[in-house]
Amino acid sequence: MGASDFAVRRARGRAWKVAALALMMAGAVQAATPDRDAIQAQVAQRHDASVKALQDWIALPSIAAEDLNAKQGAEYMAKLAREAGFQHVEIVETGGKPGVYATLDAGAPTTVGLYYMYDVKQFDPAEWSSPPLEARIVDKPGLGKAIVGRGAANQKGPEMAFLAALHAIRDAKQAMPVNLVLVAEGEEEIGSPNIGKLVLRPDIQAALKKSIGVFMPMGLQDADGAVTVNLGAKGVVELELVADGKAWGRGPSKDVHSSLKAMVDSPAWRLVKALDTLVSEDGNTVAIDGFPKPAPLTADERAMIAKSTAARSEARAKQVLGVPHWIDDLPWQQANERLVSQPTINIEGLVGGYTGVGGKTVLPHRAVAKIDMRLVPPITRDGAVAALKAHLAKHGYGDIAVNVSGGYDSTSTSADSRLVQAQLAVLRRDGLDPLLWPRLAGSYPGFVFTQPPLSLPAAHFGLGHGGGAHAPDEFFLIESSNPKVRGFDGSVMSFVDYLYELGRPSAETTAGQ
Amino acid sequence: MGASDFAVRRARGRAWKVAALALMMAGAVQAATPDRDAIQAQVAQRHDASVKALQDWIALPSIAAEDLNAKQGAEYMAKLAREAGFQHVEIVETGGKPGVYATLDAGAPTTVGLYYMYDVKQFDPAEWSSPPLEARIVDKPGLGKAIVGRGAANQKGPEMAFLAALHAIRDAKQAMPVNLVLVAEGEEEIGSPNIGKLVLRPDIQAALKKSIGVFMPMGLQDADGAVTVNLGAKGVVELELVADGKAWGRGPSKDVHSSLKAMVDSPAWRLVKALDTLVSEDGNTVAIDGFPKPAPLTADERAMIAKSTAARSEARAKQVLGVPHWIDDLPWQQANERLVSQPTINIEGLVGGYTGVGGKTVLPHRAVAKIDMRLVPPITRDGAVAALKAHLAKHGYGDIAVNVSGGYDSTSTSADSRLVQAQLAVLRRDGLDPLLWPRLAGSYPGFVFTQPPLSLPAAHFGLGHGGGAHAPDEFFLIESSNPKVRGFDGSVMSFVDYLYELGRPSAETTAGQ
Repeated sequence: MGASDFAVRRARGRAWKVAALALMMAGAVQAATPDRDAIQAQVAQRHDASVKALQDWIALPSIAAEDLNAKQGAEYMAKLAREAGFQHVEIVETGGKPGVYATLDAGAPTTVGLYYMYDVKQFDPAEWSSPPLEARIVDKPGLGKAIVGRGAANQKGPEMAFLAALHAIRDAKQAMPVNLVLVAEGEEEIGSPNIGKLVLRPDIQAALKKSIGVFMPMGLQDADGAVTVNLGAKGVVELELVADGKAWGRGPSKDVHSSLKAMVDSPAWRLVKALDTLVSEDGNTVAIDGFPKPAPLTADERAMIAKSTAARSEARAKQVLGVPHWIDDLPWQQANERLVSQPTINIEGLVGGYTGVGGKTVLPHRAVAKIDMRLVPPITRDGAVAALKAHLAKHGYGDIAVNVSGGYDSTSTSADSRLVQAQLAVLRRDGLDPLLWPRLAGSYPGFVFTQPPLSLPAAHFGLGHGGGAHAPDEFFLIESSNPKVRGFDGSVMSFVDYLYELGRPSAETTAGQ
Repeated sequence: MGASDFAVRRARGRAWKVAALALMMAGAVQAATPDRDAIQAQVAQRHDASVKALQDWIALPSIAAEDLNAKQGAEYMAKLAREAGFQHVEIVETGGKPGVYATLDAGAPTTVGLYYMYDVKQFDPAEWSSPPLEARIVDKPGLGKAIVGRGAANQKGPEMAFLAALHAIRDAKQAMPVNLVLVAEGEEEIGSPNIGKLVLRPDIQAALKKSIGVFMPMGLQDADGAVTVNLGAKGVVELELVADGKAWGRGPSKDVHSSLKAMVDSPAWRLVKALDTLVSEDGNTVAIDGFPKPAPLTADERAMIAKSTAARSEARAKQVLGVPHWIDDLPWQQANERLVSQPTINIEGLVGGYTGVGGKTVLPHRAVAKIDMRLVPPITRDGAVAALKAHLAKHGYGDIAVNVSGGYDSTSTSADSRLVQAQLAVLRRDGLDPLLWPRLAGSYPGFVFTQPPLSLPAAHFGLGHGGGAHAPDEFFLIESSNPKVRGFDGSVMSFVDYLYELGRPSAETTAGQ
């Protein structure tokens, strides 16, 4: 898509006419050093509007697991992209929740891919100290003022900060240094079951293929300001193990009076017995027969972890998580090595029979364990599921259903890629000593970018700090009381700097993909 | 309380004046053979009113576990007793949900105790085919017309039928053949934690002590019409096993992101591992160390079970329960021997972490198993709980909380007691061949009557048929399509006959207590 197309499209929107013309003019000074102060002034001027836009976004939760607001979420995502200057914005049907595909053609030599999610995790307002959709600005002792709401950190806060960077560059009449290709999905929190239908649609795939890599906005700073650059992420499978009387051919096909336990088999006990076989006695090691062995950490990876853990406060981490001891009472560094290198099988939830207050004397016909597994190379999603099914069958639990709801393989990107090197350059210029981290223990569907056919680098980037992802009182820092930690505007500026670093003419020659 | 007191009290209620006078006159013909046809005519005449009163009662669910309608339920129970002719009716504070104590003095030589519950089990309307509080009259193929609602069978239907018997005797101007002492509790479904405070209050205990025993109205007929007379019931303990990060001193003290499983211990897995130790591999035998051994069945008990199982349809039982095989593929008779003789440990419910639709990648800080145990002699409630706690401690799970919410010992009554012999006499007169059953697998707090200080016989009685106790679509038959099975009016008449049998002058000499 050329600059003339851009002008025509933009001119269609009356409200954006002036801005579009300004941007066209700015395009003429592409090569000039950008006026960082002017951009920063625009960031500050737009601060209230950006925070308000973030609050409005948080007030519209799209939750795929609950079939909530997918259409509205995609439309809002499209609107945000349009307003931020993407010329082509399109809602993409995927068979699941719709995705959004958008391109911003700046006529620049470099193209960068962006991965967004517009969905958020479920929440229970009763567990929150501040209403999760009101996105109030709350004092966080020791941190500053933070916006508290579902999605604040994961991922709307950082994503909004990135969009604010685009607004600021345009409002400051500066040249957009790179072209952008945005893919946004609404099913990240259910394991991205249709991400391929969005990303690999031929035209979208072709647009992404032109990029030097794909990144997701994120507040990478921890509470002390330290920054970690992740070189990948674990894979994940989410599934339900269901013990059911009908499938089993034993026990009841509906809940019956619990006195019948003396003569009727129990699917709930069966689930317990089957679960028991999946992990070691301490519940910490996957004990699934034939489960692939994880690759050992490389010396490089160990060095990264050693450096990073030395720079991060163990006491702080324990306090934030409410965890008095790591597994096996491991020291901080070994606990982190375990975090990076080991696959896991976790019980997210147990649901069977009567789950309300007090008791109810039923013998349930069905019991469910909600499970997630985190995967490291060479363990693939399909390999993990196959091993689990084979294990259950071998142990006589072949009737227990393994209902996979989502998941994907792990993802990995080289530290030498231009996408990562640009991050390191920006951070070092800011006086930060970025820590490299081999693999995020959490998961995101980077595999769709890093595996063939795209085979691109994929990463996260952004300064700023947030917490409480998937938990109550999720937050993203707006005004920081610690000069080492960026607030919202500082996060926005980190994206400005990253974009210009990615667009530097010389950058193309400093490192390959 | 004398007959003159009675007259004064009754006369206070204008609406009951005529009836009261009639009853006084009827009192004079105490010894006369009652006019059964006249009573039956009154039962028929009052049918619609009785069913309406049952529907109104079902519309007012008292659920102790949910702290719902205890006061209203006790008041309604008191009103029902007053309307049925009890002269002294009193709401009794117990420290928990209130009880109701009522006496009906007929000036008769024989006094009979009544045990009622006005509370019902929890319910989830989504699981019902007919709204659980609407108590609709629904066609039940093969059975007839049944009232469907929470409490219909357990226990409001049979209890209302008994009250209807009192109305009918009075309306037919017949003498009430026995004095009645009623105790009604509102906590049966949570294990009767305060039953002693009601039953053993000195004046109530003294009133009950004069009785020949205590019975609870029940629809004893199965779907084929067979009647079983139970000589006791298992004891029960309801409790929650709670694995919690804080109590454990490991794992998180709040839900954290599931990726942390690689370095953080899991209370949910801990619960699974602890549960696993409590039962045999098939989940069917209590494997708690030091758990008392159940007493073997006596030859008499085996004979009772053999006769009863031969008379009952195994296919029908399997169909009703939706159970294709009994435990260990036992034949019908052995399955029933197991039902009577074996203690159980049952998972009523599993609740941990995320229990909603889909998944949510958390590592829960807490997981709960809702457990009920059924107890047979010589296993006491306290003995079972002590063994469970000792077992958990011995296996290294001493941090797992054992939160007992209710329960009591088993109960047993001799077949030779007048309470039971009168049942057999009534049933045989009706051409029914009653089956004796050593011990109900379900539980009720009969221990408070059968153990010292009262040491009374305690039993259930009543014709009629119901089902779905503690389950969706609970029902009690109103109009039976099978001549062998009594509908509501037939159930009422079974109580009329039982009361006259209990009051027969000669009955006092036919059997001891």
